[in-house]
Amino acid sequence: MASVDVGIALLGYGTVGSSVNRLLVESADEIERATGHRLRVVRALVRDPAKERPFPVAEGVLTTDFADVRDDPAVDVVAEVMGGLEPAGAYVRELLRAGKSVVSANKQLVARHGAELFATASAAGVQLRFEASVCAAIPVVKVLRESLVVAHVHRVLGIVNGTTNFVLSRMERGGSYAEALAEAQELGYAEADPTDDVSGADAAAKMAILATVAFGSRVTLEDVECRGIEEIEPVHVQAAAELGMVVRLVGIATLSNGSVDVRVQPALVDRSHPLAAVDGAFNAVMLQGDAIREITLGGPGAGGIETASAVVADLVSVVGTAGTGFLQNDACWRELERLPPSEWRAPFYVHLNVADRPGVLAHAASRLAAHNVSVAQLVQHPHEGEASLDIVLHEAPVGELTAALTEIAAFPEVLRAPFALPVITERSL
Amino acid sequence: MASVDVGIALLGYGTVGSSVNRLLVESADEIERATGHRLRVVRALVRDPAKERPFPVAEGVLTTDFADVRDDPAVDVVAEVMGGLEPAGAYVRELLRAGKSVVSANKQLVARHGAELFATASAAGVQLRFEASVCAAIPVVKVLRESLVVAHVHRVLGIVNGTTNFVLSRMERGGSYAEALAEAQELGYAEADPTDDVSGADAAAKMAILATVAFGSRVTLEDVECRGIEEIEPVHVQAAAELGMVVRLVGIATLSNGSVDVRVQPALVDRSHPLAAVDGAFNAVMLQGDAIREITLGGPGAGGIETASAVVADLVSVVGTAGTGFLQNDACWRELERLPPSEWRAPFYVHLNVADRPGVLAHAASRLAAHNVSVAQLVQHPHEGEASLDIVLHEAPVGELTAALTEIAAFPEVLRAPFALPVITERSL
Repeated sequence: MASVDVGIALLGYGTVGSSVNRLLVESADEIERATGHRLRVVRALVRDPAKERPFPVAEGVLTTDFADVRDDPAVDVVAEVMGGLEPAGAYVRELLRAGKSVVSANKQLVARHGAELFATASAAGVQLRFEASVCAAIPVVKVLRESLVVAHVHRVLGIVNGTTNFVLSRMERGGSYAEALAEAQELGYAEADPTDDVSGADAAAKMAILATVAFGSRVTLEDVECRGIEEIEPVHVQAAAELGMVVRLVGIATLSNGSVDVRVQPALVDRSHPLAAVDGAFNAVMLQGDAIREITLGGPGAGGIETASAVVADLVSVVGTAGTGFLQNDACWRELERLPPSEWRAPFYVHLNVADRPGVLAHAASRLAAHNVSVAQLVQHPHEGEASLDIVLHEAPVGELTAALTEIAAFPEVLRAPFALPVITERSL
Repeated sequence: MASVDVGIALLGYGTVGSSVNRLLVESADEIERATGHRLRVVRALVRDPAKERPFPVAEGVLTTDFADVRDDPAVDVVAEVMGGLEPAGAYVRELLRAGKSVVSANKQLVARHGAELFATASAAGVQLRFEASVCAAIPVVKVLRESLVVAHVHRVLGIVNGTTNFVLSRMERGGSYAEALAEAQELGYAEADPTDDVSGADAAAKMAILATVAFGSRVTLEDVECRGIEEIEPVHVQAAAELGMVVRLVGIATLSNGSVDVRVQPALVDRSHPLAAVDGAFNAVMLQGDAIREITLGGPGAGGIETASAVVADLVSVVGTAGTGFLQNDACWRELERLPPSEWRAPFYVHLNVADRPGVLAHAASRLAAHNVSVAQLVQHPHEGEASLDIVLHEAPVGELTAALTEIAAFPEVLRAPFALPVITERSL
């Protein structure tokens, strides 16, 4: 086999960057066997070359000057593993324009500026790959772009944030949201400031990327309806269990009649649904499409070595397709309408705290019926003059549900603001 | 984008072949966007050109003469969707030698002659892809060969037969094996002669292919230890439920200290394990490796359109990597020892029917202990002078377990042959 060197540059040489180098060195034979080439890190851009590194590079590889990477003819492909919007964004743009394919692990960059970067890559005839930007080593981007080319994927369901999944899984064993979050922080699953995870913002960025790739149309972070898990109480988790369901933070991207809707929110997931089996800090993504029914991919959605493994897989794929024209199209090839958020449809779960008086249920049901929202299932828990009602509703537009709940909230018998979550049961069996 | 025609030939034009053609025609734009090329079926080998076809081909495409396919310079890539070992095998061999890449959906061919065909493809500098031969549209082969190049996969766990998974899932709701099988037959999930499925033979062929790809070493059908589901009784399914587990037909391929073990057998799977969530006729494969911990892929493992979608994905991948040297290595690049079957290790579940007399349990436990097999959990059900014992054992070599059970079977108090299944709980979290 002809062994040809392919020069790799790394933007950043921290945890992920050094792991990428280590994998390239330690698995050089495996990579040569698959690609026919030996991949070597010839440049690594860092801020402080004097800093000690977990897996040191050869003499002369580290540089603090981006121009050394951009202008080095020995650099064939660049992996951006530095993070942050700038200067990473400017670097990636320049590299693509200079005709170098780029692999990025940068979720925020791809979620915010993906469409522009895809166009830049396409115009320059090079590739931009970004597997590691979503769910680490779970190869969902590659599967979408290469295996499901003709599958017409119309729905993406994802548990794409490990922190919130850990917290919600933990709440099933009892305890409050605050307690579960504290445990997640102790175990290192949640940051000291957990806002980015628990607010759904991290999941929203990943869903924006997945929806863009799945539907071939630009979905930005601002297009994603987003709601976090901060309001989830033990009573909701218990009600879910009684209904044979679990509470999970779910990203849902839908392409329906030419309109796109992307949202992240807590949802009740039926225990028989593959996403309900995603436990602890794991991630899973279900892709539904015409020719495949549904394909679910799961695994650890984070981790330094897992992320590095996805970066290396992308490098291998760039080398394995070089010069063929493969995936050099603009990944955003069409403009799709956004579905007005109130028109998004789902079955819903509603939790009501009411005074335990005759007629309350009939009154609530009549307001729902007035908005064409019908009740599928109802459980009532009386408790010292009060009652909590757990109601599962048939599929309805979220706008109609919200209107009905606003009317119900105004009843004198309703003691707290009604609480509603979508329900995920349907599959494409 | 330069639009270049790529000529596709089909060997066989039945359900899968005609669906491949339909997908190529109906999704020609999507394929061109991804690859830069338009793929067209220029030849289709059939036995009877006069037969009516669900998706007819253009005039002059059908032929009954294999030489028309092999010698046509307009044919760039060939999809073998005819099935059967011969003449399919001879055709694939000739095509590879003639320098044409081949995509095959033929499980039996790849499981029995894969190693030889990989070597032929490698020598000719062309590709042999076979995604559709295992689990239809679930892209497990592509993920193993392209995404997990540096992951050092050391274990593959798979539910790779939908018929047996349906039967075992069905038994959880009550009823005998025979009743569940009859229902599977009524619903079209099982053949009139279900032997190939229920004996584990179908799963064994798929596991041979997956193990070969995962470990880079030839695993033939004869190397796979195989046991079917015919002996599973309601009592085992109930015992599993009491232990928080389900019974599933599981393929397990292990690479441990340089030795390979591949087996298919019913196993008890912990409810929290991703494979336990695989319901009805679905399939799932879990890949465990150093850099990824574990990645699980699930979906429908059969179906004409799903299989066709995998064939098209392979065609797209061949076109997308043409001329790069990618995946033109011999997929079987090393010789690995077979683990002596008795040395394979797992935790086990044992079901014993014994006379309800004092001392039986102590006697059984002492025989297990003599073989260094220790008891993790035990449930005893007395019933009219008899008792059934459901025992979960800590990990032990299957040879030691079998020796202990042979001794236990000789006790006068043991009323039926002991029944043992491996237990799957451990994950790489």
